[in-house]
Amino acid sequence: MGKSRLEAFSDGVLAIIITIMVLELKVPHAQSIEALLPLTPVFLSYVLSFVYLGIYWNNHHHMLHACQKVTGPILWANLHLLFWLSLIPFTTGWMGENYFAAAPSALYGAVLLMAAIAYWILQQLIIASQGTDSFLKKAIGNDWKGKLSPILYLVAIPTAFWSQWISQGLYVFVALIWLVPDRRIENAFRSR
Amino acid sequence: MGKSRLEAFSDGVLAIIITIMVLELKVPHAQSIEALLPLTPVFLSYVLSFVYLGIYWNNHHHMLHACQKVTGPILWANLHLLFWLSLIPFTTGWMGENYFAAAPSALYGAVLLMAAIAYWILQQLIIASQGTDSFLKKAIGNDWKGKLSPILYLVAIPTAFWSQWISQGLYVFVALIWLVPDRRIENAFRSR
Amino acid sequence: MGKSRLEAFSDGVLAIIITIMVLELKVPHAQSIEALLPLTPVFLSYVLSFVYLGIYWNNHHHMLHACQKVTGPILWANLHLLFWLSLIPFTTGWMGENYFAAAPSALYGAVLLMAAIAYWILQQLIIASQGTDSFLKKAIGNDWKGKLSPILYLVAIPTAFWSQWISQGLYVFVALIWLVPDRRIENAFRSR
Amino acid sequence: MGKSRLEAFSDGVLAIIITIMVLELKVPHAQSIEALLPLTPVFLSYVLSFVYLGIYWNNHHHMLHACQKVTGPILWANLHLLFWLSLIPFTTGWMGENYFAAAPSALYGAVLLMAAIAYWILQQLIIASQGTDSFLKKAIGNDWKGKLSPILYLVAIPTAFWSQWISQGLYVFVALIWLVPDRRIENAFRSR
Repeated sequence: MGKSRLEAFSDGVLAIIITIMVLELKVPHAQSIEALLPLTPVFLSYVLSFVYLGIYWNNHHHMLHACQKVTGPILWANLHLLFWLSLIPFTTGWMGENYFAAAPSALYGAVLLMAAIAYWILQQLIIASQGTDSFLKKAIGNDWKGKLSPILYLVAIPTAFWSQWISQGLYVFVALIWLVPDRRIENAFRSR
Repeated sequence: MGKSRLEAFSDGVLAIIITIMVLELKVPHAQSIEALLPLTPVFLSYVLSFVYLGIYWNNHHHMLHACQKVTGPILWANLHLLFWLSLIPFTTGWMGENYFAAAPSALYGAVLLMAAIAYWILQQLIIASQGTDSFLKKAIGNDWKGKLSPILYLVAIPTAFWSQWISQGLYVFVALIWLVPDRRIENAFRSR
Repeated sequence: MGKSRLEAFSDGVLAIIITIMVLELKVPHAQSIEALLPLTPVFLSYVLSFVYLGIYWNNHHHMLHACQKVTGPILWANLHLLFWLSLIPFTTGWMGENYFAAAPSALYGAVLLMAAIAYWILQQLIIASQGTDSFLKKAIGNDWKGKLSPILYLVAIPTAFWSQWISQGLYVFVALIWLVPDRRIENAFRSR
Repeated sequence: MGKSRLEAFSDGVLAIIITIMVLELKVPHAQSIEALLPLTPVFLSYVLSFVYLGIYWNNHHHMLHACQKVTGPILWANLHLLFWLSLIPFTTGWMGENYFAAAPSALYGAVLLMAAIAYWILQQLIIASQGTDSFLKKAIGNDWKGKLSPILYLVAIPTAFWSQWISQGLYVFVALIWLVPDRRIENAFRSR
């Protein structure tokens, strides 16, 4: 089974998810610069989610690059990941329209947590499909980012009800550790 | 005629259909967790339709993989299938917003039935284009899932007016029999 | 210049146009079958436009298949075609919501006319790029469908203000003459 | 790292951006031709943004054609460009609904400026990745269009508060200098 259609379909879904988020930025009726001010939290949450979806697309790109064959379980694990990512426009919109209130911030983290788990499942299935000498397994190394992220989401979810800013800080922090160039898989290819 | 553009176009349409469904999950104005409760049926119907579209994408992927050349009738049969699938966001939204009421549940099944028929027509045209020694024909075998599904939809449609839960149960059941890994075409490739 | 990205981009735009039209089918609030009745004209206009966009995708598919190299003018002529096609969801929605009234029906034809002209320009540019021995020129033959369609649109536009049903009948008729399998380019490939 | 998925993802995002803009053209409730009149500024701003996005897609197409390998920074610079382009439907809608008022016109230019800067960064990263003998560097030559455009946007932004028509004139002018066939990269390929 070729992986090109899996990539094409995932790219399509990710491209649509990343773009329909901008529809939450509703065009204001007034024409003054001040009319944009109430949109600030919606805009900031859009930026955060754009970065997260960019990270997912980027990592997904690298992971599938290191995957040779696509099995039925991999197809479904990929759809499972896309399902949770498809909820990000909803949680982003809810969080942005409510000025990063407690419950929306917690739900935002919960969906990120589910997406991280779905990503991990997909990764494990690809590794399992490659047998004992899995190239992807060596490429991701100790995968400290993949292990730390869900823990930080787990911390951020209840924290949102106490201080939503610590919660938001954790989401920004997780995005930043992924934004720092992740050359693991690239290096593994180079040293092949 | 190459099939890559047919796959790309179908992937695009399916990716958009699966993603615009999430727009029915309207962002609530209140910021409490309770504000999410009324969205529960919309969310559940979204999950069901996501799984159905995932199944269609998956089966479509396998079917076109077993198709060598694309003729005019195949192109149109494919568009016919996409037409019925494109109505799923509408029926999903109507069903979800009305707590799985009778008429929306029946219409949901009617669109699934039409999509199943359209899929069958596409399959027959591909088999016919492959001649007497059709690889796809052997690959799908007795096709009991493809034959059972429309019968169950036909049962579920009138049943919705008597008990919508039996009707929903049938939709979930059909989704489950397809979710169980369908290795028919994969096996046929392996034993080639 | 390769044509694969031109095809991919056109497929993407066409897939989105064909799918966002369904968003005009607004989910009714009532849950009875009768609540669907007012949607009938919107649904019928959706079917008509779906068929038209399917025809355009189909013909575009064949035309680009017969095109070897993509020049700057071809890129822009293609974008020009996509521009007019992108207005079809708007004219479809206006026509459907106003029960095929005169002005919306005339505008519907006007956009179809502009799209037909844009398609013809694109076709001429591809033929010109292929030199005196153009394969596409021979493949389309006398192109009677391409010549008749804009004439019928031109008739249908003013007719809409006198009888919108004759106008609609002409739109359906044009769709039907294209739906009849057009084997011209396919045959040209075969007899190559 | 292959560039095909980068192209496919960018095409997807650009196709969606260019198409969802048309959703700002809200279907009027009245059925007379006059009901279209208030939509004129929305339509004109749609045409302008369609041309701008067409130019970006076109130039992006050529630039990536002249790029051999995709690095992590190039992936992120590309996402950065897509981020600013994704805001164009919002600024287009705001400008169109407010009859090209001062603040929306200025914001429109600001987003174009940021997109131009993002494009320039992406271009520099690709040139840097190609080393001292960069093919892209030679292909773009003195890049007077790329240098003039941000300057004109910078002029247009404050000018909008004094006369929005001069500002709009500048946006149209920049679009026109790009629409004039840009054969630089094509020529470079030919003379290779």
